[in-house]
Amino acid sequence: MIVRDRPNLWDLLTALRGSIVPRIAVPVLVLAACATAVVVLDRITGAVPRLDGSAFAVFGIGLSLFLGFRNNAAYDRWWEARKLWGGLLADLRALAREAEVFVADTGARRAMLEAALDFIHAHRINLRGLPMRDAPRAGVVVLADAPHPPCAALDGLGALIAAGHRAGAVDGFGARSLTARIGGIAQQQAGCERIANSPLPFVYSLLIYRTSYLYCLLLPFALTATTGWATPLFVAVVGYMFLGLAEVTEELSHPFATSPNGIAMDAICRAAEISLAPHLGRVAPPPLAPVDHYLS
Amino acid sequence: MIVRDRPNLWDLLTALRGSIVPRIAVPVLVLAACATAVVVLDRITGAVPRLDGSAFAVFGIGLSLFLGFRNNAAYDRWWEARKLWGGLLADLRALAREAEVFVADTGARRAMLEAALDFIHAHRINLRGLPMRDAPRAGVVVLADAPHPPCAALDGLGALIAAGHRAGAVDGFGARSLTARIGGIAQQQAGCERIANSPLPFVYSLLIYRTSYLYCLLLPFALTATTGWATPLFVAVVGYMFLGLAEVTEELSHPFATSPNGIAMDAICRAAEISLAPHLGRVAPPPLAPVDHYLS
Amino acid sequence: MIVRDRPNLWDLLTALRGSIVPRIAVPVLVLAACATAVVVLDRITGAVPRLDGSAFAVFGIGLSLFLGFRNNAAYDRWWEARKLWGGLLADLRALAREAEVFVADTGARRAMLEAALDFIHAHRINLRGLPMRDAPRAGVVVLADAPHPPCAALDGLGALIAAGHRAGAVDGFGARSLTARIGGIAQQQAGCERIANSPLPFVYSLLIYRTSYLYCLLLPFALTATTGWATPLFVAVVGYMFLGLAEVTEELSHPFATSPNGIAMDAICRAAEISLAPHLGRVAPPPLAPVDHYLS
Amino acid sequence: MIVRDRPNLWDLLTALRGSIVPRIAVPVLVLAACATAVVVLDRITGAVPRLDGSAFAVFGIGLSLFLGFRNNAAYDRWWEARKLWGGLLADLRALAREAEVFVADTGARRAMLEAALDFIHAHRINLRGLPMRDAPRAGVVVLADAPHPPCAALDGLGALIAAGHRAGAVDGFGARSLTARIGGIAQQQAGCERIANSPLPFVYSLLIYRTSYLYCLLLPFALTATTGWATPLFVAVVGYMFLGLAEVTEELSHPFATSPNGIAMDAICRAAEISLAPHLGRVAPPPLAPVDHYLS
Amino acid sequence: MIVRDRPNLWDLLTALRGSIVPRIAVPVLVLAACATAVVVLDRITGAVPRLDGSAFAVFGIGLSLFLGFRNNAAYDRWWEARKLWGGLLADLRALAREAEVFVADTGARRAMLEAALDFIHAHRINLRGLPMRDAPRAGVVVLADAPHPPCAALDGLGALIAAGHRAGAVDGFGARSLTARIGGIAQQQAGCERIANSPLPFVYSLLIYRTSYLYCLLLPFALTATTGWATPLFVAVVGYMFLGLAEVTEELSHPFATSPNGIAMDAICRAAEISLAPHLGRVAPPPLAPVDHYLS
Repeated sequence: MIVRDRPNLWDLLTALRGSIVPRIAVPVLVLAACATAVVVLDRITGAVPRLDGSAFAVFGIGLSLFLGFRNNAAYDRWWEARKLWGGLLADLRALAREAEVFVADTGARRAMLEAALDFIHAHRINLRGLPMRDAPRAGVVVLADAPHPPCAALDGLGALIAAGHRAGAVDGFGARSLTARIGGIAQQQAGCERIANSPLPFVYSLLIYRTSYLYCLLLPFALTATTGWATPLFVAVVGYMFLGLAEVTEELSHPFATSPNGIAMDAICRAAEISLAPHLGRVAPPPLAPVDHYLS
Repeated sequence: MIVRDRPNLWDLLTALRGSIVPRIAVPVLVLAACATAVVVLDRITGAVPRLDGSAFAVFGIGLSLFLGFRNNAAYDRWWEARKLWGGLLADLRALAREAEVFVADTGARRAMLEAALDFIHAHRINLRGLPMRDAPRAGVVVLADAPHPPCAALDGLGALIAAGHRAGAVDGFGARSLTARIGGIAQQQAGCERIANSPLPFVYSLLIYRTSYLYCLLLPFALTATTGWATPLFVAVVGYMFLGLAEVTEELSHPFATSPNGIAMDAICRAAEISLAPHLGRVAPPPLAPVDHYLS
Repeated sequence: MIVRDRPNLWDLLTALRGSIVPRIAVPVLVLAACATAVVVLDRITGAVPRLDGSAFAVFGIGLSLFLGFRNNAAYDRWWEARKLWGGLLADLRALAREAEVFVADTGARRAMLEAALDFIHAHRINLRGLPMRDAPRAGVVVLADAPHPPCAALDGLGALIAAGHRAGAVDGFGARSLTARIGGIAQQQAGCERIANSPLPFVYSLLIYRTSYLYCLLLPFALTATTGWATPLFVAVVGYMFLGLAEVTEELSHPFATSPNGIAMDAICRAAEISLAPHLGRVAPPPLAPVDHYLS
Repeated sequence: MIVRDRPNLWDLLTALRGSIVPRIAVPVLVLAACATAVVVLDRITGAVPRLDGSAFAVFGIGLSLFLGFRNNAAYDRWWEARKLWGGLLADLRALAREAEVFVADTGARRAMLEAALDFIHAHRINLRGLPMRDAPRAGVVVLADAPHPPCAALDGLGALIAAGHRAGAVDGFGARSLTARIGGIAQQQAGCERIANSPLPFVYSLLIYRTSYLYCLLLPFALTATTGWATPLFVAVVGYMFLGLAEVTEELSHPFATSPNGIAMDAICRAAEISLAPHLGRVAPPPLAPVDHYLS
Repeated sequence: MIVRDRPNLWDLLTALRGSIVPRIAVPVLVLAACATAVVVLDRITGAVPRLDGSAFAVFGIGLSLFLGFRNNAAYDRWWEARKLWGGLLADLRALAREAEVFVADTGARRAMLEAALDFIHAHRINLRGLPMRDAPRAGVVVLADAPHPPCAALDGLGALIAAGHRAGAVDGFGARSLTARIGGIAQQQAGCERIANSPLPFVYSLLIYRTSYLYCLLLPFALTATTGWATPLFVAVVGYMFLGLAEVTEELSHPFATSPNGIAMDAICRAAEISLAPHLGRVAPPPLAPVDHYLS
């Protein structure tokens, strides 16, 4: 996640970190070059066919419709992913407090919270597709061979509650509170996995990229007569808008990647460790700070 | 569900798998042919009536409005269907953990989880309208004659809980936890059946297809004067946009079909089997992998 | 509810069932006739004032905004109504399973489920404004004199639980589960009554119909110069789009009416009877089938 | 709330009740007069500056964007307010049934329901900013001096449950059910107070009214050349659309006012009295009927 | 939060408090000056390149799309923040009533409510990034050294419940009710922290500001031919619309800042103190009143 204040004049002119410009510079320049070629040809031969501007408007409206939809859908995925992680953090904090109330034995309680922290790290590593063996917690490394490590971590937490309930250390009220809390965690986990495993329909990507490129390639034929040598500039600006938006939405629709706009899951895992530290009798680690405006 | 990375240049030019082009190629070509005929007639007779471009813009806006609405509605249906299936997966995992806590007897617990797996398969088969007798699980085949097999599977699960509760093996807390979980499953099941049984209002399909075709058929009369021989190309691009979107939305609005964008219900059922395997004392099966970019 | 597959070419040309055409044919023809009169007058006198096309575009955008909003609002009402009925079905199924678990006595349990079926029929009849005395269930006819029959049916169900709880046949867990379920049903019932009793603000209807008609009446003055004798056709198409959408939204915003797009409440009540049949020890009735593409 | 059927032809031409026309007639006429002045000046002097129509289109799009947003936001506030009141009605009905189950003593139960009715009336009066002393219920008048009368009514209900719980008349299950229900009521109450106390950001009102007026004042300069004497008519229609929508949204965004589109809270309070009457052993009062199409 | 009635004519002309004008006056004037320079150059040299108006329309549509999206997203953040704070207020009121029911000892109950008030103030101070040591409550100042003061306050509340539960003063029903309520509070707290810590993606700010400025800088080249000396006025109006909206959305997207449209968290904390006063045996403080139309 990029953490920056609102852009000032200087940022507007120069910001590349967090900007989409570097990634679309090549295609935009290619489109501008094509536009230049069309204008040159038109000036030399005078035989370049000319398209109608008002018909082009309809074309542009259709394109806005595609891009507008995809932008909303991608942003919704990103924001839902963030909501789910915020909810997981709240559920971990609530779990700690409920364990405090319903589990008298400190050791059993702490084992549950360690399992919960194992879960959140395994969940993060699983969503990012990283190797589970490199996890920063021993409890997670142990789960590396499980068919589904985050589920295994929650199963472990469930087994602790089951053992406590059978031993009489956790009464019915406690068992119900704690399992309901884990049920809520499982819902949010499944929500994250849904976003990670179900990309936006591929057909939209094809429709949008194909239409955007066609539009920018045909635009010079509509502009050359009226706009002349400013056509390439215009095509570049329109290309910047449309390809830039397509690129942003591509990135936002994968909120668990380690891209500039990915969810700062490392920071949220750390926040969970900070919030659970008092319950575990530990000193809280410091919160993660952004490096070069980027929070992982 | 089509599982592909973002399209690169080559994909943009050639991708047909997951593309909508094959299905709309014929009508788009017919529309382009009509446009060609209009241009030819205009060049020969000079008496073809000409329509006004700016009035056409209004027409296009109305059409964008229809298509934009239908696109959002269809995508919402698809995404809600995916959410419901993600929620079912989470509920099955939570059910397994709650059974672990509240049902001490391993045999009774496993019978409940088998019933839950029967349910999810029967639900999948029911949504797809497939024959229940061909189900991969014996427990589902048994239900084939029930008036509503998925409900019968959940009824069976409920009966196990009722029997356990009356025998004293499941206490009040457990009965309440487990029935509440089944209540949640029933809500998500009903949500899926709602989407499957209530298509988008038919009248929208008529309005959209009729207006799209009329628009593309009238467009040449507006373009021929200014755009000339490029008119058929233009009509084809606009037809690709509008008919392509209509086709995509038709497909997304039926998320339980076995179309390229259908929900990957087989894969989710398998994910449920993987997650429940440790609770059933089984070895987890491997996750389903996409075949030719397609995950069923 | 109209149940049809996606329209094929023949349907596009001919479908009237589920189409909006029959209801808007008269006003659209009147608008086209007015347009013809304007063109004729213009050709004869040459003194017909001409309006500017680009200014008209703004007008059209405003109109799209109204229609787009109303379309979304109406569809949301329709879809929410469908969701509520799907939720009621799920709640009835869950109630049956919870009664199975928490109410040991078969007679008491069945009385509860009969009361639940009375409720859903009374609720349906109440939403449609039909006479309660013609209900197909004796239990509903009995309630015809109650100030609010659906509430009376749920009150009866509540009284059964209260009696069972006081007699010791339903323990605290059961009482809490069953009353919570009835509370959920009451929320969905109130949601339906909200939609039935709170139409879309009347002022929108006025704004939209007045603006649509004004637009179509003024349009010929903008088109006559450029579009000539094709003006009436154009006005008819625009009128079809705008009045058609206004008509569809009028219908969808009243989802409990017996219109072609009304919620198929009869079919859902039947589905509830099917799902509850095994719990009542009855043979399940067959599901309702659409008649002439229409499911009531 | 205005209760009318869909407008027929006569209504379209004449309806003022529920129409926005009377409130915006003066500014629309002033705008039309300004437009007339511009046309006259242009005809006399020929020196009136002329603005470009296509640039105006952009301006209009921006304005549609503002109005579209505000319309959605205002309607969402109105519909959410209606949802919250529907939810309160359902919660009161559920409370009555839960009290029936968990509170054996009729007197104690009825006292609770009276407190709930006191709450809903106090809540209505509080939202409308009316004097609490004029309330139609003695139980509400008593609360007039409390710092927050609706909270005081719910506190009273809570105190009854607390007393019953300590006296053993309400067991743990009942206490939990009833307090959870009151918690739900408190959430919906806070939702209503949020809408009442947090208007739409004032800055939007400024932006929209300023831009609408500027637009309508500048429009004649764009139209005079092409549209001539029809310009004032056109300006009046555009002013009707834009100012009318601004006015409607102003009204809908204050859903608790006694305006034509305000929530019919009197009718809902009455519906609560009707639903609770059997539980209180009373004869249900008749439902409120609209007066001159208006339901308060 | 700005608290004003709807603007009258005088406000429309003069209102600066709550207006966005002061903050965008400089860039708008600069843009108008640039436009004037272009017109002057065009009149003197006649060699200024001219851009096509209809192509500009597409550009404007793209921009509307960006601004429309950002406006919706920013408003949703603001409104969600307001919802969360309304929910916190409701939860505090419900907590007080549940404590009344489930905690017989007045001292223990009041200690819990004090901890809840500590939490809400610590939460407010934390969201605004103010120094915790300057808090108006001693209970908050004590938490200043905790790694996360609002969590520490809720942990304190949880510890009180745990102690009461172990001492037998709070039974299982009470422990479950109260911990569930704190769990709900934790969810809303995490929601607020999510909004505070996850700004809108920075890339949108860059795209929008860059495109808005480019648009306004290029606009004179499109208008100078047709609009002449009115071009600077037009550019200023368009700049007012686009930059004004960008500024409003910047502000709304940070709902916890002390800006004119920030959430009135001081007032809500005071409302919580008023609602809890009777439960704490205190005289309720007066509600906060706006100062110069501003409620902090």
